Amino acid sequence: MVSVDIKNIKVIIYDFDGVMTDNKVLVSSDGTESVFCNRSDGLAVSAIKKTGIHQCIISTEENKVVEKRAEKLGLPCIHGVSDKKTTMLDYLKKNNFGLNSVAYVGNDLNDLAAMKLAAIKIAPKDAAKEILVIADIIMKAKGGDGVIYELYKSLIRK
Amino acid sequence: MVSVDIKNIKVIIYDFDGVMTDNKVLVSSDGTESVFCNRSDGLAVSAIKKTGIHQCIISTEENKVVEKRAEKLGLPCIHGVSDKKTTMLDYLKKNNFGLNSVAYVGNDLNDLAAMKLAAIKIAPKDAAKEILVIADIIMKAKGGDGVIYELYKSLIRK
Amino acid sequence: MVSVDIKNIKVIIYDFDGVMTDNKVLVSSDGTESVFCNRSDGLAVSAIKKTGIHQCIISTEENKVVEKRAEKLGLPCIHGVSDKKTTMLDYLKKNNFGLNSVAYVGNDLNDLAAMKLAAIKIAPKDAAKEILVIADIIMKAKGGDGVIYELYKSLIRK
Amino acid sequence: MVSVDIKNIKVIIYDFDGVMTDNKVLVSSDGTESVFCNRSDGLAVSAIKKTGIHQCIISTEENKVVEKRAEKLGLPCIHGVSDKKTTMLDYLKKNNFGLNSVAYVGNDLNDLAAMKLAAIKIAPKDAAKEILVIADIIMKAKGGDGVIYELYKSLIRK
Repeated sequence: MVSVDIKNIKVIIYDFDGVMTDNKVLVSSDGTESVFCNRSDGLAVSAIKKTGIHQCIISTEENKVVEKRAEKLGLPCIHGVSDKKTTMLDYLKKNNFGLNSVAYVGNDLNDLAAMKLAAIKIAPKDAAKEILVIADIIMKAKGGDGVIYELYKSLIRK
Repeated sequence: MVSVDIKNIKVIIYDFDGVMTDNKVLVSSDGTESVFCNRSDGLAVSAIKKTGIHQCIISTEENKVVEKRAEKLGLPCIHGVSDKKTTMLDYLKKNNFGLNSVAYVGNDLNDLAAMKLAAIKIAPKDAAKEILVIADIIMKAKGGDGVIYELYKSLIRK
Repeated sequence: MVSVDIKNIKVIIYDFDGVMTDNKVLVSSDGTESVFCNRSDGLAVSAIKKTGIHQCIISTEENKVVEKRAEKLGLPCIHGVSDKKTTMLDYLKKNNFGLNSVAYVGNDLNDLAAMKLAAIKIAPKDAAKEILVIADIIMKAKGGDGVIYELYKSLIRK
Repeated sequence: MVSVDIKNIKVIIYDFDGVMTDNKVLVSSDGTESVFCNRSDGLAVSAIKKTGIHQCIISTEENKVVEKRAEKLGLPCIHGVSDKKTTMLDYLKKNNFGLNSVAYVGNDLNDLAAMKLAAIKIAPKDAAKEILVIADIIMKAKGGDGVIYELYKSLIRK
């Protein structure tokens, strides 16, 4: 890990399920899937945008629900991803971001390889143990309870 | 702040998300948004109406869900609002209410400027710190857990 | 109150919201309303049917969701009711049940007048104070957490 | 009970409601039913598949929601079942599994007869008492909070 300050962060990569949600999914008899997101995270995403920091969601899930949320938040979103590490590296290269400018917020095993490469590794309180042990910062909030809002208020806002 | 008694209150302004809800939003793969409201709050809104106190919802959110809830409750609702303070002042002027007759129930940063002007400032237990410090009354209930029901039972009902 | 034994109970009247649910309602942007019910309560309703005890839902709510749940449970359901007491008395008369054979499970102010007349008054743990003070039996379960399942297992099942 | 090691397990039978969900059901005014499942359980089902262990859902519920979830997980699913024991025995026979190779994860009374026959009986923390007393293993997780994820991480993964 390159030692960095949050001031050097130019882009934040978010996992979706378990970070912006409580990792649950509402499955309906008509096939619809739904997840609970947090209005506070929505406010925080807007506020972070205004600071000039880029934000991107990378998700393993193929369902459209993450796409709908990303649309509402006005964030780029790459989903249906089997290998998050490669996807992240591609995204960073295309957008000219070095790894030392990346913060990654993830909660589960499929985030591990990508997260290890990020300059700042951030985990919700209820992330998997494997994630918690490599995290630089563990949030007070559980997934879906305002992880991004806490990130904004405690680390980014001056 | 003008020192007032709840007896002088002629109108209550409600924020929606985080007051009538737990500040979460269920996002569905078909684009529908949904929020959890409380049946007790519904009973309380009806009971407050009978006392002659006016009630109005002012929300930043553009989604239709707040409109649907307001319809069910039979309350006026102004949503998709970027500046709550100006919106509130317009509403009060049109309806001939002075600021000393206003109670405001809010939970987050976008309520701050409007809330500061109200005679009585009320916050759910889990409101943002910035709101809690200016609140005259902090409820025992969290957002969505019956904030308006508690307001009715503890302050309005005789 | 006539002193009765659960053995004398021939009919159970249920309130819906706050008894079979946690008193919350999911409001969707397309106008749909939804509530969380408990699968255990579903099993218990079936088991109670087999004992020969009648069951009926009486609800103030006008929404179709209670109707849908009643259909699934195979229970009679009277909803959109403004005066539960009169409705209950009509129902009992039509079906030839005396008040001394009625158990009533309710949680809120609009249950009070009807509930007072029932031989056995049962309340979820999180019922309104006014209900808790008149209840003969207060359940360990909160509304929606298996109130009917507990009723069945602790009182009816031999 | 035949004494067995998890290494001898060739098939896992899952109850659905109360194991993969919190035993609640969201009932909508349009008749749709929905349940909350856990993304972590989804990851665990995939990981268990890779070990060669078979998995099957057997559910009493007639609703389509379990079918939709099973589809997403890529698991066989038998639902609308009134007698789980007979259904399980048929399934095992057809697929050439002996009872000593079966692990059963269940939470409620309708699982009891089938579960008793399984070599390893596994219950979520909040299962019915009748289930907890016969369980070989009681999970730390409640139903819907990652029971299968815990099963995978604590018992199957090497």
